[in-house]
Amino acid sequence: MTNFPKRIAVLGSTGSIGRQTLDVIRNFPDYFQVVALAARSNVSLLAQQAQEFHPTLVTCFADTPELEAKARALLPDVLIGEQGLLAAATHPDVDIVVAATSGLIGLRPTLAAIGAGKAIALANKETLVMAGHLVMNAARRANVPLLPVDSEHSAIWQSLRGENPRDIQHLLLTASGGPFRQATLEELQSVTVEQALAHPTWRMGPKITIDSSTLMNKGLEVIEAHWLFDVPYERIKVVVQPESIIHSMVEFVDGSIKMQASLPSMHLPIMNALGYPERLPTTGSGLIRELSWKELGILHFDDLDLARFPCFRLATEAGRRGGTYPCALVGADEEAVELFLHGEISYLGIAELIEGVLELHQSIEQPDVATTIEACAWARRTVRDLWRKRVTA
Amino acid sequence: MTNFPKRIAVLGSTGSIGRQTLDVIRNFPDYFQVVALAARSNVSLLAQQAQEFHPTLVTCFADTPELEAKARALLPDVLIGEQGLLAAATHPDVDIVVAATSGLIGLRPTLAAIGAGKAIALANKETLVMAGHLVMNAARRANVPLLPVDSEHSAIWQSLRGENPRDIQHLLLTASGGPFRQATLEELQSVTVEQALAHPTWRMGPKITIDSSTLMNKGLEVIEAHWLFDVPYERIKVVVQPESIIHSMVEFVDGSIKMQASLPSMHLPIMNALGYPERLPTTGSGLIRELSWKELGILHFDDLDLARFPCFRLATEAGRRGGTYPCALVGADEEAVELFLHGEISYLGIAELIEGVLELHQSIEQPDVATTIEACAWARRTVRDLWRKRVTA
Repeated sequence: MTNFPKRIAVLGSTGSIGRQTLDVIRNFPDYFQVVALAARSNVSLLAQQAQEFHPTLVTCFADTPELEAKARALLPDVLIGEQGLLAAATHPDVDIVVAATSGLIGLRPTLAAIGAGKAIALANKETLVMAGHLVMNAARRANVPLLPVDSEHSAIWQSLRGENPRDIQHLLLTASGGPFRQATLEELQSVTVEQALAHPTWRMGPKITIDSSTLMNKGLEVIEAHWLFDVPYERIKVVVQPESIIHSMVEFVDGSIKMQASLPSMHLPIMNALGYPERLPTTGSGLIRELSWKELGILHFDDLDLARFPCFRLATEAGRRGGTYPCALVGADEEAVELFLHGEISYLGIAELIEGVLELHQSIEQPDVATTIEACAWARRTVRDLWRKRVTA
Repeated sequence: MTNFPKRIAVLGSTGSIGRQTLDVIRNFPDYFQVVALAARSNVSLLAQQAQEFHPTLVTCFADTPELEAKARALLPDVLIGEQGLLAAATHPDVDIVVAATSGLIGLRPTLAAIGAGKAIALANKETLVMAGHLVMNAARRANVPLLPVDSEHSAIWQSLRGENPRDIQHLLLTASGGPFRQATLEELQSVTVEQALAHPTWRMGPKITIDSSTLMNKGLEVIEAHWLFDVPYERIKVVVQPESIIHSMVEFVDGSIKMQASLPSMHLPIMNALGYPERLPTTGSGLIRELSWKELGILHFDDLDLARFPCFRLATEAGRRGGTYPCALVGADEEAVELFLHGEISYLGIAELIEGVLELHQSIEQPDVATTIEACAWARRTVRDLWRKRVTA
């Protein structure tokens, strides 16, 4: 056993991936040690986590004075704002930074962590989708590994172990197909928030659950895979695998396909990323219920009907076009999903608003961090503008 | 492209695997070159192959004077008998020896090839089943790679690329289940030769087709996997996968399962073995019809009903007991299957005769080559004795 315990900073420790990262660390005290915890607004949970894991550094983004006051009351030594995130990401005692914040907030800290030579366990999709060129160039320069935490990218990464990247024929991302895999276009018109939040195989936060149902999430994963594995878009396909047992596949130039299977659980990709190159023995740990081969049972593989999932098309188009299109996509989607969750627009209205924003977007090539953030903010504002025009029309 | 063209000796060039090996070489003339061809008795085909591939050395086992005369007439420079096989296996110009003879004939040449530092593409199951300890020790001493040609072992080998062998929790060998996967014990009692020769997914020679239907072949593969991957028997499981698309799986200590898929074809494992570590680009070569992910369709995984497949139990028991039990198993099976193919015994009589032989067997630990061969020959004689006693009883 080499290089253990690894010392970890968790950015986004109170979110879904952050909490599951701490589950893993709790189950493997000999392997991991928490050095820094960073949260956005869930101060009470952050305080509990700090009490349990005794990190050297605790930081809270706390974007309101009330949150800041609460954080300072519960955690006397807390750092506040982006400075705190950057301090956590670059702390000299940290080996691996788990980038599990949501949205744009993680971009600068992730780049800072790469600059400081930290390994990155990457759970924040938006970072790669919006700034893949910046992140991958920085990682190459710093010779820092990007360890995927998404189940799909982890499956591809595992299937590529020991293989030559030039032997890749296709990456085959699997998709559960979400709750509306078999819905007609007509049925999609009247989808309620409750229906869209009921994902058949995965339990996640509301934003990503909606993105999964529209397949926007799968589109973002295609862009992520493009950057992570340096594979052109025409070689990345999506296959519907409703049981969510096969997490993705790689087809090689000789016609051989390799794939990875497990029960749907984020603990496993987190363990794979944090433990790499070691696999952590979970048998009997109680953390992961292992997939018995008997449970493989029957696995279905199916084609994706793009006509019913316009968000997927919009995402992959934005990826192919490059520039700030992916930034506009992410911003527009965040705002449109929020409008849907608040009952302001219909389910199919999400894609309509995003398409409207992308049509108006004037892309800038090779954006820097500030341009990336501004393109995303522009798209959020533009969604609101388009929506208000429609409401008042 | 390093180390190409690789120079190949094909032992058993006129058999099913030998012919498919030559298909691969024919399709990749820049990658491979035939140095030596060795056959047992199909002199006409051997002569054709020699004319096409211009090997430096041609050899025919020719165990009757008629065959020898025919071979010398068609191939003036032919070598005859075991000396020829040994010369092919150790020829100084050869890089890889494809060990694709059937039965015991390949054991000495394979050990000689290992001693001469050749890489071994191993298609002959019996070699590892009967003399796994000799072959693996010799390969370790000579630091020679054993490249599996069986589809199951190739799948495991591919799934283990880049992995640490100590992270293996289970090897999961898949089995089509053969033509009698769903037959009742009663139905098995009246199986005809024609029924047993009709394998649902693979086209092979008659002996291995019968062995596939009884699952003896799967039992031999378990023993082979035990030796090739140094995994104890209790960690090797068999899973029925009727479509023969998933060729085997590895379950790791962290609960992750990796598997390899392709259409049923022996060309692919042959290419994987000969090309290793490169994957040969077959797209559009016409040699392999690639598995489109759309054809994955529906994959079934099922438990193996051991009660209906006594040959599987006999094989794995012989493997666990070790010594010369596996040699007796192989010899008894060869003779019993021959009796069945000639209509002399019933289908279930195959397992009965093998069980009878194993009960009589007095095992010798750590057998050398001569002891291995003698245990196998003893078992063949004993099958005949048991059968005659029954017929005359």
